[in-house]
Amino acid sequence: MHLQLDGRGPLHAQLTRALKVALAHGRAGQGAKLPPTRALARDLGLSRNTVLTAYEQLRAEGFMEARVGSGSFVTSPLLAEAANDAQPMVAPPQTAYARRAREIHDPAWLGRSQPAGIRYSFQYGLPLVNPALTTAWARELARAAAYTAPNYPDAQGLPALREAICDYLARRRGVQAAPEDVLIVSGTQQAVSLSARVLLEPGDLAVVEEPQYFALRQILQIHGARVHGVDVDNDGLLPDRMPKESPRMVCVTPSHQFPSGAVLSLQRRLELLQYARRHDTWILEDDYDGEFRYDSKPLAALRSLDRDGRVLYVGTFSKTLFPSLRLGYVVMPTALRRDLVTAKWAQDFGSSAIEQAALAHFMQSGGFERHLRRSARTLLERRAALLEGLHAISQGRLEIADSHAGMHLVVWLRGKKNADLDAILAFAQRLGLGLHTIRPHYLRTPERAGLLMGYCGLSVAQIREAMPLFARVLDAAHA
Amino acid sequence: MHLQLDGRGPLHAQLTRALKVALAHGRAGQGAKLPPTRALARDLGLSRNTVLTAYEQLRAEGFMEARVGSGSFVTSPLLAEAANDAQPMVAPPQTAYARRAREIHDPAWLGRSQPAGIRYSFQYGLPLVNPALTTAWARELARAAAYTAPNYPDAQGLPALREAICDYLARRRGVQAAPEDVLIVSGTQQAVSLSARVLLEPGDLAVVEEPQYFALRQILQIHGARVHGVDVDNDGLLPDRMPKESPRMVCVTPSHQFPSGAVLSLQRRLELLQYARRHDTWILEDDYDGEFRYDSKPLAALRSLDRDGRVLYVGTFSKTLFPSLRLGYVVMPTALRRDLVTAKWAQDFGSSAIEQAALAHFMQSGGFERHLRRSARTLLERRAALLEGLHAISQGRLEIADSHAGMHLVVWLRGKKNADLDAILAFAQRLGLGLHTIRPHYLRTPERAGLLMGYCGLSVAQIREAMPLFARVLDAAHA
Repeated sequence: MHLQLDGRGPLHAQLTRALKVALAHGRAGQGAKLPPTRALARDLGLSRNTVLTAYEQLRAEGFMEARVGSGSFVTSPLLAEAANDAQPMVAPPQTAYARRAREIHDPAWLGRSQPAGIRYSFQYGLPLVNPALTTAWARELARAAAYTAPNYPDAQGLPALREAICDYLARRRGVQAAPEDVLIVSGTQQAVSLSARVLLEPGDLAVVEEPQYFALRQILQIHGARVHGVDVDNDGLLPDRMPKESPRMVCVTPSHQFPSGAVLSLQRRLELLQYARRHDTWILEDDYDGEFRYDSKPLAALRSLDRDGRVLYVGTFSKTLFPSLRLGYVVMPTALRRDLVTAKWAQDFGSSAIEQAALAHFMQSGGFERHLRRSARTLLERRAALLEGLHAISQGRLEIADSHAGMHLVVWLRGKKNADLDAILAFAQRLGLGLHTIRPHYLRTPERAGLLMGYCGLSVAQIREAMPLFARVLDAAHA
Repeated sequence: MHLQLDGRGPLHAQLTRALKVALAHGRAGQGAKLPPTRALARDLGLSRNTVLTAYEQLRAEGFMEARVGSGSFVTSPLLAEAANDAQPMVAPPQTAYARRAREIHDPAWLGRSQPAGIRYSFQYGLPLVNPALTTAWARELARAAAYTAPNYPDAQGLPALREAICDYLARRRGVQAAPEDVLIVSGTQQAVSLSARVLLEPGDLAVVEEPQYFALRQILQIHGARVHGVDVDNDGLLPDRMPKESPRMVCVTPSHQFPSGAVLSLQRRLELLQYARRHDTWILEDDYDGEFRYDSKPLAALRSLDRDGRVLYVGTFSKTLFPSLRLGYVVMPTALRRDLVTAKWAQDFGSSAIEQAALAHFMQSGGFERHLRRSARTLLERRAALLEGLHAISQGRLEIADSHAGMHLVVWLRGKKNADLDAILAFAQRLGLGLHTIRPHYLRTPERAGLLMGYCGLSVAQIREAMPLFARVLDAAHA
């Protein structure tokens, strides 16, 4: 029997405690015989009196009994109940939330998205790797670590960062906001999860675009919302398809519809705001990659057209910097400020202060916008290389959706069904080419076979190298 | 009328959009007259034809009408509805969650806890300021920034950090865990909020210790739990006071009861585990400051005695490093692993990867435990100075609760009621002395006047300087 003394107080008391721990661990079950006192004393290097005192204490407390001539035996009722139960590998879901989470979200699926042996991955969400950013960010972090207060941060976010974001939004995105309107969050996911907490009861109706970012949909569904998808066309969400039943919340990506790439027209923006007013609905405007546009200035954000205070404008640094940072923000309607800040407080007390301070300085010093301009140039080149390559290999087999922003394209395989895709993608994978179905981003599986192609994680040279492989995939699919 | 062109496409189209935005903003309400085309053209430096084309487009879309000889007037029904509404300052609560949050949590109260003019603050939760740690942490962050993957992190946490935590727990806290048991969270608050999501339906019973950390209680209450307080004595939670109705969860601080300072006896640990087994209850073991003990080795953690897989062991780096870091962890029961990891994913996709990597290296390199030893020495000196000072000024007026761990003490003012405290604390504040009532940490207001004294934020010299002020406070209170 392995026993560990804790070094606290008299030896016999230490041994008593160690024996109780051993019993509770089930290292000696009910009815088991305890080691003879003499043997245990020798093993542990203790005097026999110490062991006798400990055994006497255990007997007095009812953990063991002595049988004359036979030794000491475990009696503890604590152990009788606990004996030999294996821990269950998975408990039944303990709440409706946990049950929905299991039905809706498959954690293994996330791990599968980047299998081994892929040389050219067009996975959406891969970051733009940039050594200059790595160096700059390391410097900003070290700098911020030296002067950031170690105390619990303001749950709403560091005032300096909220100011820098307001300044940035006014100049670059046409959104007027004051620092007290801004809540710093750990990325768009937290913005959605806090909004759901504050705005949606389980069972409430929430509208998303169809298609939509799968994680947005899943977070709402896990929260318990009834999620209704409204179709999009080349001008974005179709307002006349909005449901008759008033949704509590509408989640839209007006700058660059995810994943279709459409830009919500101004007329539709106004109609959506009108719908929200008539139906007393909140709008979550997810501006996840509006910073990167290639052929036009952005339209006015919904938030900047919103006179009723119904729009939660959500921005993230996952695309402009890198996803492992986990920082984003919500420009809150005045009417919801207190609720959203309290929800953030109740969820995690506020985001990491040093990273907030580093980001505030990076924005204020101009480094962030220099980085954005550099990134936009790089992305423009990669996008051009991908478009050129796709057109070259298409031979009428590809339908490339128009998209003038962001870091991805949607490509449909003409004449192929969604059901054909598994085999096509598996073949691509054997060639070392990582292609990804658009399917997870639909509530209703599309009939056609569609790809979501992120071009952020590959250089121009790599994109060009990948095209002959893609051509072979198409050849095989049409053979 | 201020108009901003977006530079995209033909000028007349730009002007049309800008006019729509102005209308939607209500800069010209229904019936308002639009500027004459000639004047607007001059103001904007455009040709009159451009303005005429834009006005014609707006007429065609029904946003305005031309009246012969009078000019153009706004007709848009979008604007008729939106005219002149002031945004509400606060919306009615949109969900039961939001309603509870408003009833339970007063964000202004947090800001009040550190008023201006305080020279000596005994506020609990202030960090141990340590220039050596600041330097080391800046170095670790810069280092980690250089090699940490920028991709979306594993929602469960960086494997290297989970391994480092397992190693630390085994050696220092007697807790055996594998990396797959560990979930990295943004501090204890997130551990509680995720556990509530996974384990508690609104209306479910949750047990906390009485007294307890106010934020733990509030998070559970905002989630919708019925929170029941079970009294503690000098050996911690009283198991025979546990409710007859089976609670879904019991939240305890066995290593160092917060705020009383009691250590839960081994016998009661076993009884609590037995209770949990009989009542099919989950236990959240909050080991918030068990690293700092001054006169004894810690008892075995509940988690290390738990054979049924009912204990969620929660640790934090807010006390051992600093609170603005926002990192902590849960050692999860096997049966709840998937649910808790998915809840973390749905809440924020995972914690910041660079800070996780920095912490993993700090732990693996031995820097963390060196820092702990240094901190423990410093805290021991501060604690001794505070105890010595309190005994010196007490003259029978103070009852100093026994506590052999952590960074705070509970001090009762003999002969004073809780109701007397406001005046006493206000007097202390006028002297520049920051004293804090223990009241927020009770569900049921105690009759006695009690102080929660954190000694982490003051040097030995400052603690000594503060004692004569405290003596004056006591003199005044007893005058």
